[in-house]
Formats: sequence, structure tokens, C-alpha cells
Amino acid sequence: MDKKRYRLTLCYDGTHYSGWQIQPNSVSIQQLIEQALQTVLKENIRLIASGRTDAGVHALEQESHFNTAKDFDKYKLLNSLNGILPSDIRIKEIQSVDDNFHARFSAKSKIYHYYLHLDPISDPFKALYRWHLKQKIDLDKMRQGAQYLMGTHNFISFSNESHKGACKNNPIKTIYRLDIHKTDYGAVLEFEGDGFLYKMVRNLTGTLVDVGLGKIQPHDVLTILNAKDRKKCSFAAPAIGLFLIKVLY
Amino acid sequence: MDKKRYRLTLCYDGTHYSGWQIQPNSVSIQQLIEQALQTVLKENIRLIASGRTDAGVHALEQESHFNTAKDFDKYKLLNSLNGILPSDIRIKEIQSVDDNFHARFSAKSKIYHYYLHLDPISDPFKALYRWHLKQKIDLDKMRQGAQYLMGTHNFISFSNESHKGACKNNPIKTIYRLDIHKTDYGAVLEFEGDGFLYKMVRNLTGTLVDVGLGKIQPHDVLTILNAKDRKKCSFAAPAIGLFLIKVLY
Repeated sequence: MDKKRYRLTLCYDGTHYSGWQIQPNSVSIQQLIEQALQTVLKENIRLIASGRTDAGVHALEQESHFNTAKDFDKYKLLNSLNGILPSDIRIKEIQSVDDNFHARFSAKSKIYHYYLHLDPISDPFKALYRWHLKQKIDLDKMRQGAQYLMGTHNFISFSNESHKGACKNNPIKTIYRLDIHKTDYGAVLEFEGDGFLYKMVRNLTGTLVDVGLGKIQPHDVLTILNAKDRKKCSFAAPAIGLFLIKVLY
Repeated sequence: MDKKRYRLTLCYDGTHYSGWQIQPNSVSIQQLIEQALQTVLKENIRLIASGRTDAGVHALEQESHFNTAKDFDKYKLLNSLNGILPSDIRIKEIQSVDDNFHARFSAKSKIYHYYLHLDPISDPFKALYRWHLKQKIDLDKMRQGAQYLMGTHNFISFSNESHKGACKNNPIKTIYRLDIHKTDYGAVLEFEGDGFLYKMVRNLTGTLVDVGLGKIQPHDVLTILNAKDRKKCSFAAPAIGLFLIKVLY
């Protein structure tokens, strides 16, 4: 019997997981969903995501796909999966897709948001979802620094992949949009790009925050970019503030 | 040396605690703050709150007071306490107050909000802070039922204190305001009253939700109120959706 392909849209609070990808001795989101699919469909299922998210990183709309020969009612499967999964992982939609749809390779762009909580005192309700900074931060300087990152560049200086020897992924990426907005309680950095290297959004955020704090100047962002050396950029911003917002196909 | 009295305003995410009050074999919010105060002030401190909150109940602004003979810089003490306390409990303010200020007995009214998340699919980011209901709910009917609760009544039907024999607290309470608003993702029940009995807000919410779901009629709220019998009212709404918003003095 021929296998059919399904697109599965989901969201998760990454707090209690080792990240998307299955790893020994830890609980991953991929593992829990694959197990739930296997419980319901009685078949070994391999779930491919648009990309991995690290431990503690959240997703409002992660995309994935799987193949199965089994027939099922999509609405019932969605409810069964949500019945099995812990409440911090939710399946939002299951759709039939063509065999040439691929959650990772068909993605045209991805939107990530990084949220900052700016206040002298931290907030219990934001502690797992915002990077809390007590210091004064200059958003205009961050915006000036962000201008150097727009467009197509070799982003190897902002990737942790280079630490593991050769970069597996093409380090040439395009950032379509990098907006920095004030929010009620702080600020948000909105990234849209055709793809992001390992820890790239968190490294970019860490570097721009250092610009905002006055530790480095806006123009230093260009110097770091041109250096093509991870050791030049700032510490990665913590995982908690990062949300995968949407994958566009 | 004479002891001075201080008012301590705090907020907390109640998820990981057994509630406000110190209890054997569990971690309470009161215990952690008293221990932090003792660590910094090197003195046994007893902290009196405006009222207890149950396990899982949250507070945006809980009020408390303590006495000490020690001299300290209030801003430094606040920072020291927040340095010791876990990030889901934050001290927001420490003020000097008169000896006749009492966090519980001086309170004129309290505002509680109960948040509902109304959607066919639950949301990982609301799971600990909203009561999720899949069913259709009629907010107008809930508002009709709420009208019977406004003003001064014997609320023993909505208190779990009566289960323990005699009600320790005066069951005559006044509700000044009970507004039910639609929100982006569901609804909020806003309670303001001169005081609330044990589990009263959750019992009122559970009963009004049953009205909204059509399980009982708006007029049944009056019947339950008049019965003066806890067994007549609905199940208590879960703790997760309940927030102590403000204590007014």
C-alpha cells in the first residue's frame, strides 16, 4: 500500500525538553510526538521538522511531516495525539500534502522572535519566556547594528557550527527582515530569513544586546560579520527568550 | 530595641508551590520568603499575608508585613531577597508602615481575576495560567447568574470551609464588582470584594461556568446562594486560572 504524506503543525513550550531532536538520556519533543503517532497509528513513524530548536526554545508554529500507509480521520488523530501528549506540546493541525512537500527543504523562510524583558525587577510570569535585563538598553543603537545584518551574507561568525569543524550547512543566508520593537515590558527582535545556522538567532541577539548596552558599537557588528570567526561575536542570548513563530512555504 | 513594621509587596507564579501557607512536607511561598528574610536579617521573621492562596494559585500583587528591630536599606534588602528567592517569586516593594498596618486586617478589598481559555485546542503557553474549556460558553448567561452574587450575602454555599464543620470566618461577605469580559483568547471573571472565604472565588467561577455551559440556569445561582449548603454548588474551578491581582487598603 502506498504511503501518503501529512503535514503536522504544532506548538510547544520548550522549557521541559532537551529540544526538538531525539537525543540519548533526555526527553525531546520529536520523540514524544513520534511515540504518540506510533501509539495511535500502530506503525513506526519518522517525523521531519522544518528545523531543530534547542533546549528551552519555544515554538508557536513549528512545521513537520510524516509518511504513513494507514488511513485515518485527521480530526480524530489530532484529538488522539493531543490526548496522549503533555499539555506543553499541542498539535494544531494535520493536513494531507503532496509527496514533494518537505517540512525542511520546502521552507521559503522562517520567522523567529526574541523577547527581552527590560525592568529592574524580573517577573515570575516572564521568567521562562523572556530574557530579563536590568540595565538600560539603547534600542536605536541596536537598530543601527541590525542594519549591517540585513540581506545576504556569510553568517559563520554568528554560528556555533564552526566550533565543530567544517560547517555542515551553507553559511550564506539571507535576512529579509530584522525589526526591533518596543513592547509593554521590554522589546522584541523580529527575524525573518531564508534559514538560520545553529544558534545564529541567539548569537545575533546576544551581539545586538551588547550594542544596546554600549559594550560594543553598532559598527562592530559589521566587523564581526566580516571576521567570519565565531570567537569575535558576543555570548549567545539564553534559549528562553526565543520563539519560532512561523515557517513559510 | 523597638521593632519596626514593614510592608512587603510580592508576586509569584504558584505552579510549583503548595500555596502560601507553611505546611509539612511541601514547599510554600511563605516559607521561602521567611527563610530569605532570616538569611539576610539574621533574625527569625514571621511574615503575615493579606490571605492565603492555594496550591497553583498565582499572585500579581500579594501583600504581607513583618516586624524587625534590624536596620536596613530597603532597596538593598529587596535586591538581596530577590537574589536568594527562586525566579518564580519576586519581591516588588518594601515600605515602612505604621504599627497599626496589618496585611490581613487592614485590607479594605481584594481583586481576584479568573481567566478562561476558550478554544477547541489548548495552548502550551496558557496551560498553567488559564482554565481551558473546549465547549461553547454563553457569557451573557454567566453575567445574568453573576447578578445574584453582587452585594452582601452569606456565601457559605460557595465556601469549602463549611466542610470542616463550623466556618471559622464570618460567611457574610460583600462583592462590589463581578465583571465578565471577553478577552482575545477567552474570558476573564473579575471579582472585587471585602473578603473571600476558602475556595470561594473558584467555587463561584465553577458555578458560573456551569451556567455558561447550560448545565444550570442563571436563576439557579440564587437557589444555590439561598441554600447555604456547599453541596449544592458546582465543582471548584481549577487553581491554575486564579490570580490575586491587588489588595486595597
